[in-house]
Amino acid sequence: MTRRKRDFPVSQIRRYLEPGPVVLVSSCWKGKTNIMTMGWHTVMEFTPSLVGCVISSANYSFELIRNSQECVINVPTMTLLDKTVGIGNTSGADVDKFTKFELTADPAEKVGAALIRECHANFECRLHDEALVEKYNFFIFEVVKAHVAASPKYLQTVHYTGDGVFMIAGKTVSRRAKFVRGL
Amino acid sequence: MTRRKRDFPVSQIRRYLEPGPVVLVSSCWKGKTNIMTMGWHTVMEFTPSLVGCVISSANYSFELIRNSQECVINVPTMTLLDKTVGIGNTSGADVDKFTKFELTADPAEKVGAALIRECHANFECRLHDEALVEKYNFFIFEVVKAHVAASPKYLQTVHYTGDGVFMIAGKTVSRRAKFVRGL
Repeated sequence: MTRRKRDFPVSQIRRYLEPGPVVLVSSCWKGKTNIMTMGWHTVMEFTPSLVGCVISSANYSFELIRNSQECVINVPTMTLLDKTVGIGNTSGADVDKFTKFELTADPAEKVGAALIRECHANFECRLHDEALVEKYNFFIFEVVKAHVAASPKYLQTVHYTGDGVFMIAGKTVSRRAKFVRGL
Repeated sequence: MTRRKRDFPVSQIRRYLEPGPVVLVSSCWKGKTNIMTMGWHTVMEFTPSLVGCVISSANYSFELIRNSQECVINVPTMTLLDKTVGIGNTSGADVDKFTKFELTADPAEKVGAALIRECHANFECRLHDEALVEKYNFFIFEVVKAHVAASPKYLQTVHYTGDGVFMIAGKTVSRRAKFVRGL
């Protein structure tokens, strides 16, 4: 089941990435496409909307992303856990992951990489700074367009802890009244 | 209640940081100490054990950390949520946060900043690379010593989603059998 998505302010994508979910990164370069599973990322700025990500040069996606200077960060939930694990344990050099994992590639608006329709949110990214790519495989992307399903408001995202174990996002609590500065 | 901690392999601290919890960063420089709440961080490497963190120059902690080139990343759980929010909403320029929030400063082994006893885990960090500090407030630290309470194995960490709302870590699920390469 997939839900219709709406445009979402790129300056607010922390809502989905800051809690640390495992994400799926889609890429495309010269007709080659791929999807990788990624857990090492952090929000870095609201405006421009920056996200820093470690993408190992051992991954098939590395060259696609470095050469195209683009990708899409897709946020899966618990229902996609087995596909997420499968994607992380196969190489795009061997298989077409959209086909193998029965995921739908929707066209993005601003980048060549595809939006994964079955994910709750899709963030179109352009490479913003590659200063630390050589040394740490660390890419800083700008989110240039965000698509988010209208519901549910809070997701059962999956968070990796190593050793094959995932933490599933639990309940939410508000402490809004205790914030004195920005939220 | 605080539990006795034991040494933990620094190469395995992803276990605690990769799921994206809000953490408390303690710092010390020339007799000044502080604690800040931080949500923008990512694991970057196993060995050396690297963690990248955004620490805004607007924070009182920024100068303490930049000058001392050290800090401790402490992992709080749900029981410390209100203190964690309070720490994020006060400035070390105005108050001594250890006193105000009734937290215990235990001496670290390798850095001058204190371990927060009430946190489940404490990671002593030395600045590893400041190449992106000026441009993005992005510090790359090496975890040089890790202290972790023996139980519980999985924590009710808190994960920020913006707007004053936190997600609390839920249940865990294993997919270990589906991993074909490293875990």
